[in-house]
Amino acid sequence: MIDRTCPANRKTDVSDQSRRPYGNRPTMKDVAARAGVGLKTVSRVVNGEPGVTPDTERRVRESITALGFRRNDSARILRKGRTSSIGLVLEDLADPFYAPLSRAVEEVARAHETLLINGSSAEDPEREEELVLALCARRVDGLVIIPASDDHRYLEPEMAAGIATVFVDRPAGQIDADAVLSDNYGGARAAVAHLVAHGHRRIGFIGDQARIHTAAERLRGYRDAMAEAGLAVHPSWTAMGSTDPGRVGAALGAMRGGPEPVTALFAGNNRVTVTVVRRAAADGRPFALIGFDDFELADLLSPGITVIAQDPAALGRTAAQTLFRRLAGQHEVPKRVELTTRLIPRGSGELPPE
Amino acid sequence: MIDRTCPANRKTDVSDQSRRPYGNRPTMKDVAARAGVGLKTVSRVVNGEPGVTPDTERRVRESITALGFRRNDSARILRKGRTSSIGLVLEDLADPFYAPLSRAVEEVARAHETLLINGSSAEDPEREEELVLALCARRVDGLVIIPASDDHRYLEPEMAAGIATVFVDRPAGQIDADAVLSDNYGGARAAVAHLVAHGHRRIGFIGDQARIHTAAERLRGYRDAMAEAGLAVHPSWTAMGSTDPGRVGAALGAMRGGPEPVTALFAGNNRVTVTVVRRAAADGRPFALIGFDDFELADLLSPGITVIAQDPAALGRTAAQTLFRRLAGQHEVPKRVELTTRLIPRGSGELPPE
Repeated sequence: MIDRTCPANRKTDVSDQSRRPYGNRPTMKDVAARAGVGLKTVSRVVNGEPGVTPDTERRVRESITALGFRRNDSARILRKGRTSSIGLVLEDLADPFYAPLSRAVEEVARAHETLLINGSSAEDPEREEELVLALCARRVDGLVIIPASDDHRYLEPEMAAGIATVFVDRPAGQIDADAVLSDNYGGARAAVAHLVAHGHRRIGFIGDQARIHTAAERLRGYRDAMAEAGLAVHPSWTAMGSTDPGRVGAALGAMRGGPEPVTALFAGNNRVTVTVVRRAAADGRPFALIGFDDFELADLLSPGITVIAQDPAALGRTAAQTLFRRLAGQHEVPKRVELTTRLIPRGSGELPPE
Repeated sequence: MIDRTCPANRKTDVSDQSRRPYGNRPTMKDVAARAGVGLKTVSRVVNGEPGVTPDTERRVRESITALGFRRNDSARILRKGRTSSIGLVLEDLADPFYAPLSRAVEEVARAHETLLINGSSAEDPEREEELVLALCARRVDGLVIIPASDDHRYLEPEMAAGIATVFVDRPAGQIDADAVLSDNYGGARAAVAHLVAHGHRRIGFIGDQARIHTAAERLRGYRDAMAEAGLAVHPSWTAMGSTDPGRVGAALGAMRGGPEPVTALFAGNNRVTVTVVRRAAADGRPFALIGFDDFELADLLSPGITVIAQDPAALGRTAAQTLFRRLAGQHEVPKRVELTTRLIPRGSGELPPE
């Protein structure tokens, strides 16, 4: 596909000496004129193609050096029709958890000389489908997806047509596909067991919407750890829903002010944790808290916030590496990789019951 | 352009009743069968086209409601050839400053039923050019760019071909284009004047690379505020460079440990501020600090961190709104909009000299 709006083509049309759209940047034509050879010869030297004598090649290289010519990769890419690219579909542009994940995917893409194009579903399944299909229509070679949807059958025709796809943070729904996840269940169990070990018996859990895989897994870990400790869970101790600060603050107030007030809280993700920390600071009543996800400055608060840390960069890196192995032709059955989490004690998770 | 990998086309090929790739989702064919009309009639009703009698339209609408049919927007988009989309070129995926900016651009794009596609230049001018041209080749309608480059002549053919472009956070280089900026100079002056008002005479500035517009403007504001206060600036008091924690930590050590040690610091952006806060906490020697850019939890540290706050959401929103006005055909000369900044005193900027 050669698009009529491609600048490289238009540049060729207008690149006489009198009108150079790129200012003083030397062109292949300049190199050819100075070396006394044809344009095709310069092109062969620049692109490492055969059919040039050593003497001619030397003259072309001298001319390139003298003029400071730099191959216009954009032009080369557009001649090929397109550059390699992969798409990354996030669920929330404003969640800092995804920043190191995105950057890790970008670094792997760059190592493969591939552009990364991002988009956000804003946690809306229809938006996810629209975005994924738009990226496919723009001919990405592969996709890394943090899914908002729980039904990815819409992707089957794309995958059958050769678009490699790896899911990260959450698995695909209704289709068989590579996935790179954190051990959400194990991390949640460890958090609750840690609070129990510090003397807590009434422990609350505020999580994200229960339809989200990570939230459901963390809730399951919370329930199993409570059961293992022989502790019944009062219905008022769990609250699943949006991470909106108003919702989280109300849930916290209900758990701390009810007939069976909790003495400790396990916060289901970094957005929940930050809201809870803010509320606790406003109340002036610190209480035991462990948050799922590490976050910037958690160690500098008083007390420091104990967290279950995922490794978002490792999630992104592993997903991207899996994708490029698929693009290179690896044809094993889809795999699910689970990365471990790590409890980082900093003070808030070690407070005793009030 | 109809791409052969488009699922919507393939779906049409295989959508007989015996094999439905999308499970139980009702198709237009189902609607037509139930209403006893042809497919074209259903299509006319769904797309609001003329040529359908009121009675037939009523029957089709009843059939749509009964079956729970939802128009497949992806198919509609792919029939048109593509959906509307704009590109956002960031300079760093991992800088939290850009999270609310990106989300604001996304919200404006969504209000215009337009997809947002992001990419990152990673502060590399060549990468920026490659990414911008790749987005153009993928036929975005417009671009919002946080530039890494200081020469945007490569964009002139694109802009001439009708791709609307708005720069945000930093202006375009060598071309005339819309730009939405913060008052970096004024904010920096206010920060330094605030430290002077609290008794400081030896004030340091650690900023980002001086070739970056925002960094240069903040340095200029620092210098002018010092001059207005009648204070000479010792050469060791300014350090421009990368925001790498090692570089920032070394610069801070030199300023605090030199022959003319500073008693206060103005940190040039949120990455610098966070490193400085971390070092100060490790030293156990708090000192006066104002940071450019607000950041999450700055108010919960001890002392709270005084900042010059930009409004990144307003930057993104204003840039996107400017872009959509251009896309709607507004043809005024390019404008530069500058948004004010705000000093938020929280304690660290009000500490007296040691």
